[in-house]
Amino acid sequence: VWGRAPQQPPRLPPAPRRAFSNNRILVELDESSGVATMKFKSPPVNSLSLEFLTEFCIGLEKLESDRGCRGLVLTSAIPRIFSSGLDITEMCGKSPEHYAEFWRAVQEMWLRLYGSNLVTLAVLNGSSPAGGCLIASSCDYRIMVDNPKFSIGLNEAQLGIVAPFWFKDTFVNVVGHRVAERALQLGYLFPAPEAQRFGLVDELVPEEKLQEKAAAVMAQWLALPDHARQLTKAMMRKALLERLLAHRDDDVQNFVSFISKDSIQKSLRGYMEMLRKKKG
Amino acid sequence: VWGRAPQQPPRLPPAPRRAFSNNRILVELDESSGVATMKFKSPPVNSLSLEFLTEFCIGLEKLESDRGCRGLVLTSAIPRIFSSGLDITEMCGKSPEHYAEFWRAVQEMWLRLYGSNLVTLAVLNGSSPAGGCLIASSCDYRIMVDNPKFSIGLNEAQLGIVAPFWFKDTFVNVVGHRVAERALQLGYLFPAPEAQRFGLVDELVPEEKLQEKAAAVMAQWLALPDHARQLTKAMMRKALLERLLAHRDDDVQNFVSFISKDSIQKSLRGYMEMLRKKKG
Amino acid sequence: VWGRAPQQPPRLPPAPRRAFSNNRILVELDESSGVATMKFKSPPVNSLSLEFLTEFCIGLEKLESDRGCRGLVLTSAIPRIFSSGLDITEMCGKSPEHYAEFWRAVQEMWLRLYGSNLVTLAVLNGSSPAGGCLIASSCDYRIMVDNPKFSIGLNEAQLGIVAPFWFKDTFVNVVGHRVAERALQLGYLFPAPEAQRFGLVDELVPEEKLQEKAAAVMAQWLALPDHARQLTKAMMRKALLERLLAHRDDDVQNFVSFISKDSIQKSLRGYMEMLRKKKG
Repeated sequence: VWGRAPQQPPRLPPAPRRAFSNNRILVELDESSGVATMKFKSPPVNSLSLEFLTEFCIGLEKLESDRGCRGLVLTSAIPRIFSSGLDITEMCGKSPEHYAEFWRAVQEMWLRLYGSNLVTLAVLNGSSPAGGCLIASSCDYRIMVDNPKFSIGLNEAQLGIVAPFWFKDTFVNVVGHRVAERALQLGYLFPAPEAQRFGLVDELVPEEKLQEKAAAVMAQWLALPDHARQLTKAMMRKALLERLLAHRDDDVQNFVSFISKDSIQKSLRGYMEMLRKKKG
Repeated sequence: VWGRAPQQPPRLPPAPRRAFSNNRILVELDESSGVATMKFKSPPVNSLSLEFLTEFCIGLEKLESDRGCRGLVLTSAIPRIFSSGLDITEMCGKSPEHYAEFWRAVQEMWLRLYGSNLVTLAVLNGSSPAGGCLIASSCDYRIMVDNPKFSIGLNEAQLGIVAPFWFKDTFVNVVGHRVAERALQLGYLFPAPEAQRFGLVDELVPEEKLQEKAAAVMAQWLALPDHARQLTKAMMRKALLERLLAHRDDDVQNFVSFISKDSIQKSLRGYMEMLRKKKG
Repeated sequence: VWGRAPQQPPRLPPAPRRAFSNNRILVELDESSGVATMKFKSPPVNSLSLEFLTEFCIGLEKLESDRGCRGLVLTSAIPRIFSSGLDITEMCGKSPEHYAEFWRAVQEMWLRLYGSNLVTLAVLNGSSPAGGCLIASSCDYRIMVDNPKFSIGLNEAQLGIVAPFWFKDTFVNVVGHRVAERALQLGYLFPAPEAQRFGLVDELVPEEKLQEKAAAVMAQWLALPDHARQLTKAMMRKALLERLLAHRDDDVQNFVSFISKDSIQKSLRGYMEMLRKKKG
């Protein structure tokens, strides 16, 4: 009764798909639906390097200012992994200036995504730890492959580091305080079914239905008038965005001094070593 | 073990029911139980007109200062609808002064109801969109007819408008941040069973058991000593009430300038037109 | 995959258990695991007297500064009761100075426990009303005997008194705003199965498996590196701790003036009388 047909008039003939691809992310805009897709393709595990983050921000900015774009799907071109999170090589054995530049790029990515005017949908075709979970949690809606082998969560504590306050705030807004407190302390990765039970993802979908489901979810959100939806989203997210904006420099300083500690560097090197051996 | 019998001594013979009815709301006070009932009877859909809101506030004030009244049931005399929310005719084609007066009345209604010292129970015998959902969310407890045809939610976004921050805050306190964010952006109306699953209503009841259930719930709440319960309620709700009181004039200004926009007026006229055609 | 073995190296031969017991609480530290246990043994119902609270704080301080201690289990040596909460005899018929001293001890207990660097685990072998519920809610994790005869909750309103704001804040962080608002107003005690359904306890365990489960949960938490876990916990709990620290004196004053009221004293005397008769 209260439903509404999508505002975009149907356009015939079917519009072309514009694609612009850089090194790390493939971006496609379907002009008939107004839905863009960002496909992460940075092997082996879509880790969030400085290059990746820069491409992400430029791509998102372009879509944000494109009047033909109303929705954004974030997904991965790499099987079994959405994104493994922040690139540890950017945080290990580099200069303080590099750490600061890297951290600003992480902040920038979150500020743009969490504050995006587009409908943002995370389509999790694989695991999504740490920064990957932040990206997913910053979207409007999350669907994930129904496979208990894939997991999602802020597991920073497992690496001996601490999620920044705005990762935490974003996560609390999704799963609530009790679950966030426990999961962050344990660095817990929720297997997909558990992630759904605790609300960290909204729906589980068999892998072969992922695209179809994503299109249906997006159509539901795009049926709303943009302006009211955008103002509503801004109202819900304003407090968190402003909190980082007010403390951005402090947050960079905190990160740089924390990550520069010998004990943390040692712990990260040990972690990378472990990853290397596992592969080898 | 820890339970307590109601504090009110039993009174014999059965006390009379005092009723005072105005145009829009029928108010009855059962003197033996101390429970008042406000029955909305403003056809066709109990929309919250300036007249309705004024009656509501006067009625509530009267009950609040009546020492014989301890609990308040809000329900509707009209089948299938609790309240359709704010009266759009008050927001369309009127003067800025009228909009301001109307908005102050909406604020007043919420400030009194959310801050009420009485035990407040919403008995939802039908659908409860927008402002109807605000009223229900401002009560201490909500029971709803177990019928998936009836729905409840803040669907403002569907009309191209934005729920004010204190609608949002009240809603977040009931369903939490994630559910509120999604529902507000989608202007989602929860069918009764879903409303219960997400905690937006506390219990579903077959229509014929509604009165009986309401009486049982009220008796449970009235078993508590008033003073401690009132102080506890005030502690829980103080932050939200103070937030609107601190920004009341700004909030009126925001509403007046938003609702006066040509685009919004056009959208509301279109919506009214659609309602008219559906009826016709 | 992301799991980690405990950081503590295995030590052979099995280390001795150091025990230091005072009048109200038995403290044991297992040196091999680094897990201390505080067993409340203050008959009949482990009520939180000034003496109990003082012992609790001294014991916790000792463990906190013991580098061999990483985790703390709180449980009761008395069957069927974890703790009955604040000792009403400390709040009844005493001087304002006594009330103030008592309240500072309650604050101190919470500040130390909620802010503890240790992994804190509540093992609820019986009921846990009022202050007992506060202690449990201040831990990192809660397991409870799977027995519907045992209950937990902040039932202050039933006694005609009001839970202080920091009891409320701690409770809201565990169960969320809606559930907290209702439960606090009703002074509701959740039977164990309901407590789990609403997240007030994390797991229910058959009585005979309680120790085994406690050890398993503790091992999971101790598998994390202490430093990152402690910083994460501090980040999650900082706002609440600071709120009480900023208002500590006011909170004492409020308590003293509230509890000194004739009506409250009368209500507490009546409650104690009732307890006495039930026993007799």
